[in-house]
Amino acid sequence: MHLRRGYALDNSIVILVVEDDPMIQSIVLEALEEGGFEAVIASSGEEAVDLLTDGDRFRGLVTDVNLGRDRMPGWEVGRRVREIDPAFPVVYMTGDSAAEWAARGVPNSILLTKPFAPSQVVAAVTQLLNTPNAGASPNT
Amino acid sequence: MHLRRGYALDNSIVILVVEDDPMIQSIVLEALEEGGFEAVIASSGEEAVDLLTDGDRFRGLVTDVNLGRDRMPGWEVGRRVREIDPAFPVVYMTGDSAAEWAARGVPNSILLTKPFAPSQVVAAVTQLLNTPNAGASPNT
Amino acid sequence: MHLRRGYALDNSIVILVVEDDPMIQSIVLEALEEGGFEAVIASSGEEAVDLLTDGDRFRGLVTDVNLGRDRMPGWEVGRRVREIDPAFPVVYMTGDSAAEWAARGVPNSILLTKPFAPSQVVAAVTQLLNTPNAGASPNT
Amino acid sequence: MHLRRGYALDNSIVILVVEDDPMIQSIVLEALEEGGFEAVIASSGEEAVDLLTDGDRFRGLVTDVNLGRDRMPGWEVGRRVREIDPAFPVVYMTGDSAAEWAARGVPNSILLTKPFAPSQVVAAVTQLLNTPNAGASPNT
Amino acid sequence: MHLRRGYALDNSIVILVVEDDPMIQSIVLEALEEGGFEAVIASSGEEAVDLLTDGDRFRGLVTDVNLGRDRMPGWEVGRRVREIDPAFPVVYMTGDSAAEWAARGVPNSILLTKPFAPSQVVAAVTQLLNTPNAGASPNT
Amino acid sequence: MHLRRGYALDNSIVILVVEDDPMIQSIVLEALEEGGFEAVIASSGEEAVDLLTDGDRFRGLVTDVNLGRDRMPGWEVGRRVREIDPAFPVVYMTGDSAAEWAARGVPNSILLTKPFAPSQVVAAVTQLLNTPNAGASPNT
Repeated sequence: MHLRRGYALDNSIVILVVEDDPMIQSIVLEALEEGGFEAVIASSGEEAVDLLTDGDRFRGLVTDVNLGRDRMPGWEVGRRVREIDPAFPVVYMTGDSAAEWAARGVPNSILLTKPFAPSQVVAAVTQLLNTPNAGASPNT
Repeated sequence: MHLRRGYALDNSIVILVVEDDPMIQSIVLEALEEGGFEAVIASSGEEAVDLLTDGDRFRGLVTDVNLGRDRMPGWEVGRRVREIDPAFPVVYMTGDSAAEWAARGVPNSILLTKPFAPSQVVAAVTQLLNTPNAGASPNT
Repeated sequence: MHLRRGYALDNSIVILVVEDDPMIQSIVLEALEEGGFEAVIASSGEEAVDLLTDGDRFRGLVTDVNLGRDRMPGWEVGRRVREIDPAFPVVYMTGDSAAEWAARGVPNSILLTKPFAPSQVVAAVTQLLNTPNAGASPNT
Repeated sequence: MHLRRGYALDNSIVILVVEDDPMIQSIVLEALEEGGFEAVIASSGEEAVDLLTDGDRFRGLVTDVNLGRDRMPGWEVGRRVREIDPAFPVVYMTGDSAAEWAARGVPNSILLTKPFAPSQVVAAVTQLLNTPNAGASPNT
Repeated sequence: MHLRRGYALDNSIVILVVEDDPMIQSIVLEALEEGGFEAVIASSGEEAVDLLTDGDRFRGLVTDVNLGRDRMPGWEVGRRVREIDPAFPVVYMTGDSAAEWAARGVPNSILLTKPFAPSQVVAAVTQLLNTPNAGASPNT
Repeated sequence: MHLRRGYALDNSIVILVVEDDPMIQSIVLEALEEGGFEAVIASSGEEAVDLLTDGDRFRGLVTDVNLGRDRMPGWEVGRRVREIDPAFPVVYMTGDSAAEWAARGVPNSILLTKPFAPSQVVAAVTQLLNTPNAGASPNT
């Protein structure tokens, strides 16, 4: 769509993308930017948690699940950001860990199985942003 | 996406956008047109109600909530169009009136809080158009 | 089910029922109590708003729509309680005003058209109580 | 719950149950009546279609899928009632035909796999009755 | 969006489009490709069923309902693919057969009524792909 | 409702309830049995995991979150059962840990905040049992 990102420099909607594969990084980045988002890349879960802990710059998380042997997996990044903000939109990407989502994903998250079309990333992020308090705890 | 609008001149899907801020007008217009919709602007709620009352030209409403002191708010525009057509798709945009949605919005509407990414507008409109009778009254 | 109401005297879940017809009052009361709720009756919208404004005794609202000529309708009671608590569960009952719900009901409310089976009331209330922040405003 | 059926003799909510096994007939009947519904039994799909075609006495259908060799299956009963009323609530019960539901069930229906608890039948029927126009065609 | 299709030649997400009108063929094709999908056209239901039966090349189906007098309708194509894969995403397009969807569509499918905006096709396909096992039979 | 449990001794639907407070044990047990379920109590998370690992006797889990200092919390029981069966229905009960659900609950689970009415437990369990593959991983 090649939309302008947000409608003012200081009003952009910033999505944090956690991915260590440069090709998928660029695909997801391009898709989000065409959808009018600003995307920031973190190449490890540890870096992502640092960025998410530091202020409220981000409005959503798109994270690979498998971020390398002995490294923090995407499941843990999703859990950490939900401890900071229970309503935070979380999208996971995975090649072969889909079966783990039902046990390790957070409530009201979306799992994209690779390969996926770029518009699936934009649809997942917009769906979570447009839904009232998707991740908020109930009855409270 | 720069898609053709509808697939014939007389087949376009026309969305009414009610917004008095020229910058947001142009952002929303551009986003909808890139998504293949035709968008028509009304700059006041009163003008919007006139347009909506006059025939069945429109398939959806995207309205700012705060349309100026002493002017008809977007909440009222949403209510009026639902009196005409109970299933009409309604999307609200607001900067600081989000807390009012639960009391003044219509059922099965979507609220976008500013700032938002342009693709969120397209996603909101398509979600309501693709859902069976989202606003229709139940049990009837 | 004839379940104990809540599991301690001071732990009951209290639902406010607004209805001026004694027969429907007793049907709804009985259904809610069999479902383990405590039900309190208000026979007018004005009385209901007084009760709802005064503290946080109630966890849900079941209101008739038509509460008498020149009296506050159920639509207004629903709106008032959502101004106090945006996530408050709201269920409407109506004989012939179903068409108005799409314009006058609050978001994420449920409309029961008379006649209905008693278990439909319990199902409507439990569905709203069990859903995360059903009435909360999105994006906030 | 042993609720009164509807709240007047002429106001009961009647559900058509299509089942040829007497034991399951009585289980489903008892569950629906305890939930405040009136239940009418048809022991074949052909009889069910006759009853459904003749007037608007029924508000929902609960049908076994396998109704005997060379007899009309529950899938066909569901399709027939949706031709009469596109929003009609449809619940299927099956022992071993669950895999067929995705191909032969109607949209917005519910499938109960035997064995099921009696309250699952009541929950399925009330969920469909309480949802706006669950079976209605979209975009119209 | 003019996104790259998938992120490698052998990783594209292929959608089967069944449509006999060349103009709508090209609109839908263009919309899907702009959304990053690969689209393959079949001009009859019979051809579509042959393609779907032969391997697991496709990830979704977008089918016209009315494919010509005495020809297999889109309803039948949807049913056939769900017999092969109960979770397969199915989107129907129709001009005047919307009323039939509630009786002849498969569960968890989406119906687009012509005319529609191109982004509605992409939104329908991504929604079904992003939803867990939308068409799978329950309780199993 | 005092419904018969299942419709044969060997056909009952068994729900595992994990709770260390005898009063809440008896409330939940009674509610599930009135709804036609069979309920089995485990008083610790460790005991629950042993029972769930040993065969496929159970169809759903209702677990307290806080099961004692230094003991396995309900969050961990939910995660373990989803590793065994990704579609297993999971309901949590909590007094003061609701805020943790968005980070530690499993996808498509339901959280009940104490105090709750007994019918809320039955509604939560039946909703998850009646929904197609609620906990299954998507795209697979």
